[in-house]
Amino acid sequence: MSLTHQQLTTHLGKITPLDRDWGNKAKARLDNLTKPLGALGKLEECARQVAAITRSLTPDLSRKIIITFAGDHGVVTEGVSAVPAEVTPQMVANFLAGGAGVNVLARHVGAEVRVVDVGVAVPVSGDGLIVAKVKAGTDNIRKGPAMTEDEALAAIQVGIMACRDAINDGAGLVGTGDMGIGNTTPSAALFAQFLGLNPGDVTGRGTGIDDAALVHKIQVIADALKVNKERCTSPVATLAAVGGLEIAGICGMILEAARARVPVVVDGFISSAGALCAMEMKENVIDYCFFSHMSAEQGHRLFFDKINAEPLLHLGLRLGEGTGAALAMSLVEAGVKIMTEMASFAEAGVNHDGL
Amino acid sequence: MSLTHQQLTTHLGKITPLDRDWGNKAKARLDNLTKPLGALGKLEECARQVAAITRSLTPDLSRKIIITFAGDHGVVTEGVSAVPAEVTPQMVANFLAGGAGVNVLARHVGAEVRVVDVGVAVPVSGDGLIVAKVKAGTDNIRKGPAMTEDEALAAIQVGIMACRDAINDGAGLVGTGDMGIGNTTPSAALFAQFLGLNPGDVTGRGTGIDDAALVHKIQVIADALKVNKERCTSPVATLAAVGGLEIAGICGMILEAARARVPVVVDGFISSAGALCAMEMKENVIDYCFFSHMSAEQGHRLFFDKINAEPLLHLGLRLGEGTGAALAMSLVEAGVKIMTEMASFAEAGVNHDGL
Repeated sequence: MSLTHQQLTTHLGKITPLDRDWGNKAKARLDNLTKPLGALGKLEECARQVAAITRSLTPDLSRKIIITFAGDHGVVTEGVSAVPAEVTPQMVANFLAGGAGVNVLARHVGAEVRVVDVGVAVPVSGDGLIVAKVKAGTDNIRKGPAMTEDEALAAIQVGIMACRDAINDGAGLVGTGDMGIGNTTPSAALFAQFLGLNPGDVTGRGTGIDDAALVHKIQVIADALKVNKERCTSPVATLAAVGGLEIAGICGMILEAARARVPVVVDGFISSAGALCAMEMKENVIDYCFFSHMSAEQGHRLFFDKINAEPLLHLGLRLGEGTGAALAMSLVEAGVKIMTEMASFAEAGVNHDGL
Repeated sequence: MSLTHQQLTTHLGKITPLDRDWGNKAKARLDNLTKPLGALGKLEECARQVAAITRSLTPDLSRKIIITFAGDHGVVTEGVSAVPAEVTPQMVANFLAGGAGVNVLARHVGAEVRVVDVGVAVPVSGDGLIVAKVKAGTDNIRKGPAMTEDEALAAIQVGIMACRDAINDGAGLVGTGDMGIGNTTPSAALFAQFLGLNPGDVTGRGTGIDDAALVHKIQVIADALKVNKERCTSPVATLAAVGGLEIAGICGMILEAARARVPVVVDGFISSAGALCAMEMKENVIDYCFFSHMSAEQGHRLFFDKINAEPLLHLGLRLGEGTGAALAMSLVEAGVKIMTEMASFAEAGVNHDGL
């Protein structure tokens, strides 16, 4: 039962503007706490945004769930990655065993990791895996579209349902994650197409390719955009033409978080491509997003410049999986705890003349 | 029993260079984990530095203690702060009651907060307070020295002992914190004096003074440096002349952490002034420090430029107390957990050809 265009439109229509009154109420609360006005900077901005999203001054973010979408990419046959595609299912197994970076960081911040197979090229299984494979990897975008629009819609639907389940299970804060060898290539293609940028400006070294491979990767992306030019007639069509299945899943996850008014932390380069697809479908989705970090992958800076946003962290991360999301979820939660747990001037008997 | 100059010199002599072999061993371990080389950026750098400090690939950072030093400043009578000095003891009470920003963030990251009265102007008491008052606030640095060298040494000793107690209690990671109305003024004076900068370049709005008050504050600092010029003949003498009691406590804490080879997370603007004093006494103390964040307070950027370091976080914080240290302690711990908990390629059965 794939999502139809009409159903997607209906979903997008349910994403409401933020309630700025709640942001203002949060500011009033924050300004009355035992600190100089605004002295906790971005933590306070996080608290205000969560209040506006959830329409609450006491949002419960204690249950945090990261959803990591896995998919493969036909374009890997073009030699765009330093790593073979077999690593995608190997890393899925690593996630399920709890040994990957995202597992370590999620445990550290008290978050759960869920793993979704939305498009791994080979059969994968394991305890806890959410099996929702739409297609066994995309087709080679240098030769034609990554997938059909129906497949893109189905992958978006997978993201919607995974996010809905997480929220139904009590998640007050969700985070995106990705696994897919080769997926910086479709992500860069989406940034170039949606933001009107040159492939060379948004293409980086991914897992660590050398100079010659980087030049080749840029050419592959330019070719993919040329081959698929006529197909890029709408956000869904563009996602289908040059995107990826896990990117579509992340897009759907963000659309559902926004519809349900649950704050969502966007991981890194790949997740930002998914967020950009969602924002192209419905602009104010961005109001529900917290961007976790500035990736070391070239092009991420341009994405933030274009959407006029600034990520929370600058740690030189370029792993994906949801690793940056995990760290940033802890910061968003910290901001909310400032709002809910700090003493006011009156409660603490602290003089605030002059502030 | 105050610290003598000779005892301080002996202490400084016990601070050893980092063991780079352990940093290299940590790098080898990190490079063998299931991720592209260096893909976790600054988290990996944290892990390597902790390994070099502790001479271990399995350092235990589970017990984390923040020590917040409180002291008052005679220079407040010059009108350099938006907030009256009575807020210092009020905030000490707030810390002890668990209602301040540092309490909230420390709980969030699983750290303990200890509060030391090293120089509050009025008597303070309360459950858990470490009472080690050297002097009831500094004297007005616009008129003369903040304190005597013996008093500065005594306050350094307070920091040494508080840190030693924390380490004896099992702390594997310590963080600095400060409370003292007016303390951006002596901090800016120390930055200007030690780094050869103009007071105007390192002086900011603290708790939130207006333009006219900022101009006045800069003049006060320039006057303080002029009045005390002949006294600034050594790091201890300079700290005594234009510093503060809590800044001296922080300096001592950092010196002891370095001696004991325990990583120390330096909070914000005030704590950086304490760290700078320690580094002026023994340059390689910096190798034991993790700088938590770039304060919104003007001048912090110049400090980092001068010492050629970059803080972990850029969140526009300007509260002090140890709030930034709390958040950054969690990042340092995250880096160490990456090193100790992530699966290797062999353990996870992940192909790493090409990496």
